[in-house]
Amino acid sequence: MTPRAAEACAGITLAVAALAAQPELRVDGTRVNAHLQALSAFGRNPGGGVSRIAYSDADLEGRSYATGLMRAAGLEVSIDVAGNLVGRRTGRDPSLRPLVMGSHIDSVPQGGNYDGQVGSMAAIEVAQTLAARGITLRHPLEVIIFQNEEGGTIGSRAIATGLSAEDLALVPNGATSVRDGITRIGGDPDRLAAGVRKPGSIAAYLELHIEQGGILDAAGTNVGVVEGIVGIRWWDVTIEGFANHAGTTPMGRRRDALLAAARYVEAVNRVATSTPGNQVATVGKIQASPGAYNVIPGKVTTTLEIRDLDAAKVDRLFALVQDEVRRIEQTTGTTFSFTPTSISEPAPTDARIRGAIDDSAKGLGLTTRSMPSGAGHDAQEMALLGPVGMIFVPSVGGISHSPRELTHPHDITNGTNVLLQTLVRLDELLSR
Amino acid sequence: MTPRAAEACAGITLAVAALAAQPELRVDGTRVNAHLQALSAFGRNPGGGVSRIAYSDADLEGRSYATGLMRAAGLEVSIDVAGNLVGRRTGRDPSLRPLVMGSHIDSVPQGGNYDGQVGSMAAIEVAQTLAARGITLRHPLEVIIFQNEEGGTIGSRAIATGLSAEDLALVPNGATSVRDGITRIGGDPDRLAAGVRKPGSIAAYLELHIEQGGILDAAGTNVGVVEGIVGIRWWDVTIEGFANHAGTTPMGRRRDALLAAARYVEAVNRVATSTPGNQVATVGKIQASPGAYNVIPGKVTTTLEIRDLDAAKVDRLFALVQDEVRRIEQTTGTTFSFTPTSISEPAPTDARIRGAIDDSAKGLGLTTRSMPSGAGHDAQEMALLGPVGMIFVPSVGGISHSPRELTHPHDITNGTNVLLQTLVRLDELLSR
Repeated sequence: MTPRAAEACAGITLAVAALAAQPELRVDGTRVNAHLQALSAFGRNPGGGVSRIAYSDADLEGRSYATGLMRAAGLEVSIDVAGNLVGRRTGRDPSLRPLVMGSHIDSVPQGGNYDGQVGSMAAIEVAQTLAARGITLRHPLEVIIFQNEEGGTIGSRAIATGLSAEDLALVPNGATSVRDGITRIGGDPDRLAAGVRKPGSIAAYLELHIEQGGILDAAGTNVGVVEGIVGIRWWDVTIEGFANHAGTTPMGRRRDALLAAARYVEAVNRVATSTPGNQVATVGKIQASPGAYNVIPGKVTTTLEIRDLDAAKVDRLFALVQDEVRRIEQTTGTTFSFTPTSISEPAPTDARIRGAIDDSAKGLGLTTRSMPSGAGHDAQEMALLGPVGMIFVPSVGGISHSPRELTHPHDITNGTNVLLQTLVRLDELLSR
Repeated sequence: MTPRAAEACAGITLAVAALAAQPELRVDGTRVNAHLQALSAFGRNPGGGVSRIAYSDADLEGRSYATGLMRAAGLEVSIDVAGNLVGRRTGRDPSLRPLVMGSHIDSVPQGGNYDGQVGSMAAIEVAQTLAARGITLRHPLEVIIFQNEEGGTIGSRAIATGLSAEDLALVPNGATSVRDGITRIGGDPDRLAAGVRKPGSIAAYLELHIEQGGILDAAGTNVGVVEGIVGIRWWDVTIEGFANHAGTTPMGRRRDALLAAARYVEAVNRVATSTPGNQVATVGKIQASPGAYNVIPGKVTTTLEIRDLDAAKVDRLFALVQDEVRRIEQTTGTTFSFTPTSISEPAPTDARIRGAIDDSAKGLGLTTRSMPSGAGHDAQEMALLGPVGMIFVPSVGGISHSPRELTHPHDITNGTNVLLQTLVRLDELLSR
């Protein structure tokens, strides 16, 4: 054993001793759930849930509320050039890289009250608990509320890799461009390069999130230890047929773009369900033009999304879809074109962090399960800057991106405690 | 033979003698084609064709142009309470009911220069030819330019059956309601009842129209003698599934409304193509909501249209679609609902008029073919008021409701001559 290794062992021993000395280090479950409840007022829909689209008034109001909570948790808050809310607290050892926790508070249109919001409020709660106990970690601590996760992890990408001119021109939800949005929330789209962090610049990134597949809920498991985040690819799909009179054009002489689209949607489903594995493939948008009862659609615009933990498998699935499409073109007299609009590479989590999460959960008497994340998260971008880990808590029925999203308060409290315990463990484990 | 029958025979003999005395009664082909060309200026699109939507500025301008032509053709022009342009000329026998010719000059968005417009300019040309020759028919003559045919034969329905409050509230092309449109073009939506004509109030109705299925063009036939106009039924279709996260919801746990819609579109096509006959069925509109790359569609709104000469067959086809839909609901975990939005009954043409058209065409050295009309026309409404006939001329490739619509000038001249000859024949045939 080298002196350095011996020192590391001593560090672990000390850390374990520290934990043993604080058996009751717990978050305030009532408080974190109350914060989540208060956050739900910003962008609330009459029918339930929120529409807190990035850069909207509701988003600005939610960010203002979160800023207040972060300050109350002893964090020094700033808005980085990308528009992310960043709360910082210094650590005992100024030579160490920061431990980062984060998530997002923007939602999809007609979204729910938990996706992103649980992790955001939990990260602040962990900071507040540490502050209230007078605990200063060895590492600097950062809590980041990333902007516009739902529009394509925009805020976390901005600091992990930077944004392209195309990214800035995106209008993810049809209202405000990313460029204008960044200005609106206090960032500076012309100085984004200054905000890009270096690979290796963080000690670790931790994110608590609801598990959106219903797997934990169905199994009655308390905590998911995330193995990795799937890669996601998006395409815009255009199908060209020939618009014609629906009354006079015999069935056999049609080049119906919507019939071709129907066969395409079926083919995507067949490819995804007939290939072994946990991949998913989805057609989420469709529009036929000209769009009348009595005109055969001459053009259809639609989409494709494929997700898997293995990027090469996504490529293979796309190739299978292409094979099907070539046959559909022949039988319908139409032509398809696919334009890639977004690529998100799979992101593995760090084995040490997975271990710390699992140990923390079990130490709290909670059951755990290893699982992939089918959803994209800010953690996938942060994985480019350092080791990451994700903690999942159950979402009832796996419902998400919906007003009916629900995670029970005790699961939120459990998850926040696991986040706290894991952070403290990593503060020791990663101090070497 | 009764005295009345003998008188009738004498009439026929006289009529044949009159025709024989005017072997060269022909329209001015150059003039009718020039009028059609001039009409194309109103609502012309940069890429070709017209958008002369009913009640638009372009429609008003086209109606003003047509009014001038009608006056030049010796017709006394008025706007009826429904907003139709009506040109009248008295006949020799004031006791006879009118012979009516007509069509429409409104177009679909991004429409062509022939649908409706050929029949409108031809009817005026026939009136002008008669006036120029100093020929006064026995019957009163009417030329009607019906308003808003493309929005659902609104103008002809208004005089055949009247319009309902629902009809008046319709906004067929998204801009102006039928009620406001009628006011805008000079009608009076509050006095429509005064404009409804009585069944049996016309001697006959004749309409020349382009053949929109490409059948005459493909066969090289000059003239189509229309057997009847198909019945048309429209439904709005709603498919309810469950919106969920496209990354986290396993394929087997989805209730994807768009997958159900795809199977529905395929089923409609299968029903229409596997049943013997000339029926057509079309799905022309579709929208998935919420409509994002990464959300499984929870709801799809789409449509159904079925057309056939036999109303009972339309019912049978709809029942077959319903059978397929019940199966789709079971395999996809979705529910379908169908709301009828429009019913147009099949309208047979009159055997004597078909004979007169066929005789007239053959007398002009033209080839003919009997055929149904897959498209709806104002003639189907006029069939409720008296015997109707329709003359089809070829449309290149059967393209219609498109800027690429094209009927050759010589076919327009041929059709207009058949309209003229048929009118003169009917004036004699129907004088008894």
